[in-house]
Amino acid sequence: MRWTKYYLPTLKEVPSEAEIISHILMFRAGMIRKVSSGIYSYLPLGLRVIRKVENIIREEMNKKGAIEVFLPSVQPAELWKESGRWDYYGPELLRFKDRHNRDYCLGPTHEEVITDLVRNEVRSYRQLPLNLYQIQTKFRDEIRPRFGVMRAREFSMKDAYSFDLDETSAEISYQKMYDAYTRIFKRCGFNFRAVEADTGAIGGSFSHEFMVLAETGENVIVSCKSCGYAANIEMAKVMPPEKKNPSDQKQKPLEKVKTPNKTTVEQVTAFLGVKPSNLVKTIIFNSDKGVIAALVRGDHEINMVKLKNYLKAEWIELADEATVEKVTNAPKGFAGPVGLDIRIIADHAIGSLSNFVTGANEADAHFINVNYDRDFPLKEITDLRFITPSDRCPECGGEIQFSRGIEVGQVFKLGTKYSKAMHATYLDAQGKEKLMVMGCYGIGVGRTVAAAIEQHHDKDGIIFPVTIAPFEVIITPVNIKNKEIKDVSEKLYGELTKDEVEVLLDDRDERPGVKFKDADLIGIPFRITIGEKNLKNGIIEIMIRKNRETLLEKIENGAKKVEELIEKEKLSLMP
Amino acid sequence: MRWTKYYLPTLKEVPSEAEIISHILMFRAGMIRKVSSGIYSYLPLGLRVIRKVENIIREEMNKKGAIEVFLPSVQPAELWKESGRWDYYGPELLRFKDRHNRDYCLGPTHEEVITDLVRNEVRSYRQLPLNLYQIQTKFRDEIRPRFGVMRAREFSMKDAYSFDLDETSAEISYQKMYDAYTRIFKRCGFNFRAVEADTGAIGGSFSHEFMVLAETGENVIVSCKSCGYAANIEMAKVMPPEKKNPSDQKQKPLEKVKTPNKTTVEQVTAFLGVKPSNLVKTIIFNSDKGVIAALVRGDHEINMVKLKNYLKAEWIELADEATVEKVTNAPKGFAGPVGLDIRIIADHAIGSLSNFVTGANEADAHFINVNYDRDFPLKEITDLRFITPSDRCPECGGEIQFSRGIEVGQVFKLGTKYSKAMHATYLDAQGKEKLMVMGCYGIGVGRTVAAAIEQHHDKDGIIFPVTIAPFEVIITPVNIKNKEIKDVSEKLYGELTKDEVEVLLDDRDERPGVKFKDADLIGIPFRITIGEKNLKNGIIEIMIRKNRETLLEKIENGAKKVEELIEKEKLSLMP
Repeated sequence: MRWTKYYLPTLKEVPSEAEIISHILMFRAGMIRKVSSGIYSYLPLGLRVIRKVENIIREEMNKKGAIEVFLPSVQPAELWKESGRWDYYGPELLRFKDRHNRDYCLGPTHEEVITDLVRNEVRSYRQLPLNLYQIQTKFRDEIRPRFGVMRAREFSMKDAYSFDLDETSAEISYQKMYDAYTRIFKRCGFNFRAVEADTGAIGGSFSHEFMVLAETGENVIVSCKSCGYAANIEMAKVMPPEKKNPSDQKQKPLEKVKTPNKTTVEQVTAFLGVKPSNLVKTIIFNSDKGVIAALVRGDHEINMVKLKNYLKAEWIELADEATVEKVTNAPKGFAGPVGLDIRIIADHAIGSLSNFVTGANEADAHFINVNYDRDFPLKEITDLRFITPSDRCPECGGEIQFSRGIEVGQVFKLGTKYSKAMHATYLDAQGKEKLMVMGCYGIGVGRTVAAAIEQHHDKDGIIFPVTIAPFEVIITPVNIKNKEIKDVSEKLYGELTKDEVEVLLDDRDERPGVKFKDADLIGIPFRITIGEKNLKNGIIEIMIRKNRETLLEKIENGAKKVEELIEKEKLSLMP
Repeated sequence: MRWTKYYLPTLKEVPSEAEIISHILMFRAGMIRKVSSGIYSYLPLGLRVIRKVENIIREEMNKKGAIEVFLPSVQPAELWKESGRWDYYGPELLRFKDRHNRDYCLGPTHEEVITDLVRNEVRSYRQLPLNLYQIQTKFRDEIRPRFGVMRAREFSMKDAYSFDLDETSAEISYQKMYDAYTRIFKRCGFNFRAVEADTGAIGGSFSHEFMVLAETGENVIVSCKSCGYAANIEMAKVMPPEKKNPSDQKQKPLEKVKTPNKTTVEQVTAFLGVKPSNLVKTIIFNSDKGVIAALVRGDHEINMVKLKNYLKAEWIELADEATVEKVTNAPKGFAGPVGLDIRIIADHAIGSLSNFVTGANEADAHFINVNYDRDFPLKEITDLRFITPSDRCPECGGEIQFSRGIEVGQVFKLGTKYSKAMHATYLDAQGKEKLMVMGCYGIGVGRTVAAAIEQHHDKDGIIFPVTIAPFEVIITPVNIKNKEIKDVSEKLYGELTKDEVEVLLDDRDERPGVKFKDADLIGIPFRITIGEKNLKNGIIEIMIRKNRETLLEKIENGAKKVEELIEKEKLSLMP
């Protein structure tokens, strides 16, 4: 490709709303342009990278026997009503009516459509297992789209769905996808980790997220320094305290104390002169399982994902002030378990506390010396809080560490959630009707590109891994008006193109500085510089973008040398 | 690909709503499944064909210097308000609100988005011409989706947009796309014609449609048997009558006659004993240019596209009964030009009539012996009617013929319609601001596949041209349990795959009849049959799907022979 025949508008400006480097660089490198909040156009350079990632995904999915289909993005409400998600999926599900006033949505995911397809086609155990995938546009009406294509509303996703005879077979399918994802992200050049994850709005029995390690990541990952354990912090289990109960502590008499206008943990503990770890927060939630009180220690954070999963709830949210006042008979900030007439669930850590502080369900008052069992019944104790740096690995007890990650893919073992709701069954060898066991597997294509840039850039711009680079080589003639320079550039361009190397020839009549800056910015892995001085010695310069190493090479060996470098780089990214 | 590892559910049933053969065959061959009205999933076989067509499109677009981008399908209302189409585009434009109550639509086409992109990027004449294209999902909320993917609501389209300095350059861009389309449709194996077409909701100064000739086509094409003229019947010009005026006819006195309950041409002419060609229909229209009466001869059909274009109207529709009664003071069926106080436009043919019949603007009454000028003023005479078999070629006067076609592509010279409305300008060499001159160019990808099937099928199924076939060869072992048959099949499969031939191995344990029927149905151009009898003589059979010719070939030459046949077939489709 010749730059002058291409559409590659590089820019110096930075979009005002850009918060992370990949957003800035994709904009400046002429890869994307914003159309509306969370909605982007891909310019030619950006689209080339997208296609590279898509092709890697396709190759690895096909290797594992997954078969590509293409499902519609506009989906009828009936299917979502059948699965139950029409009501439970939040406002991220963009719903609308067509001209005949029928309900539709823009697909944020395709479990319903694929389950409907397969249940209408597959009747016999002989037709299973089956894994169908697509690369298709999704829409999620995020309340606050941000980070460019990293958290866009309209985005391209590879989603795969597996259908199996039973749990064992489903686990094999899951493992195949786990392996495919591992290969895909290695080939994309990522430093990444697969971590245990929550199943969220998709549902199912278990899940892994593939996290690209990056400081700008929205996710916190907990991993063990000793064993292989790694999990999204939402999911990271906390070991129960060793001291299981407080029986060795003498229980003091329950006492109500005045705490005027003291509603936060900091205010109450400072006022009463106790440690936050000796206060118990009582947090009221509303959910489809009713109104619930959750108890966690003052120095711990409630983990709503854990609470939701424990409750097996479809949805859960912090109760509004009116609800809090109704169930506690007190303004917000004074809730406590004593005398509270709703379901109470406590975090493990509460089990070893005695003589602690709680709200008194009365304005401006707290209890001190509260003890469970004696002062309130405590039937449900479980893991409800976020893990902290002082906790130990839940698997091996080793030391844990925290890092940040960008989720680029997620695999779910769905079980029979959708096949049950939508009656996707098959007849087994004995002619008995059975539910298909499902899995689903997603990769955000645009987000993968953005994550690659988060992980691979420097102050001058992007440094694409060669496997997903829009071009493998850029040829930079320092002065296109010099005939000799032009001729050598054209010759090299011709040779490389003939050998099917993807090469961009910067044939613009621009100053060398402009060309070098642009080449750095758009991140092409190898640059061939053709300048007057070297040419006199029959030499060209090859620069390796990632380490700025330069090699001098005879003109006639230039193409071969670059091809070797490309091959070496590709090999290093082979899984 | 092995059939047993693939997802290729062929069916005997026919969908109840299927009206045309491509819909039936795409369903039966396991290419598509319906999700909702006008919304389809592509199964693996269908998607392979789509990808083939997309690749042909890409290659030819790239050859002409067009550059691929990817624009969003969800588009903000602001852009459509700027172009003015938010109000004028009918209910086919699916409009909705996001969670923040902002207006959006699902893109039925992308003029607004691309013009917005280019106006923000391109400033100088040096950056033009520019031709950007994409292959992207569109949504048009058709009132009556039908014919499977032929007239779907959600569908994939290649759309390109050219931006030029001036009219001359824009015409070069137009011609390039015209040539690219010609090559694309030749490569797809079509018998097609490019015809003059209306610009419809897209607008612009002129347009060609690429029509695949097929009896099931929704479009009627008029073409000349002598010269190259061809047009959509909507656009086909009608030569004005040779006899320009009726001055040689003696004008009889105007007379009002009773015509009780006679409202149609047939009823009135039968009742009065006159020929339909001596009656003038007065048809009342409502439009953004006001209420209008159009006059055409009783034996002619009004052409609303011509009327709309003549009026330069944004929209036009038949007036409702209330409007008709208001302007004519009579019930519907008795309108006439005499004493009518609205704008009157007559078809050319009226110019040579005298002593004709019209409605009397009074219930149950008509005028006879009406003459224009004397009885009513006639200032506007133009071409308003559909061409008929008795008309002559508007270009050369030769004999014309009618055929039916499926529109698979359309090219538009847009001019400055969008660049003016959305202020897409550049600075010329003199630093003067000028409007870009635009063109736009569409191909319906799914419709191209369906049209190919309409043109290439027989009673047994599809007959794909090799360039767009999902597989080039199918290997049919008549009995997969026979070790020798299986081994030879596998060997051939290996050889062909190694040579990058796209081959489907029907390794199912099914009766030969079932396999042959399925191979015929899915339309693979070449079938290699491996049977016991031939194998004893070291021979396999090659069948050419399109003419059922069979060749016997030694096993060891089988792969080579098939590859030759494929190459020959591909060559025959080279433009």
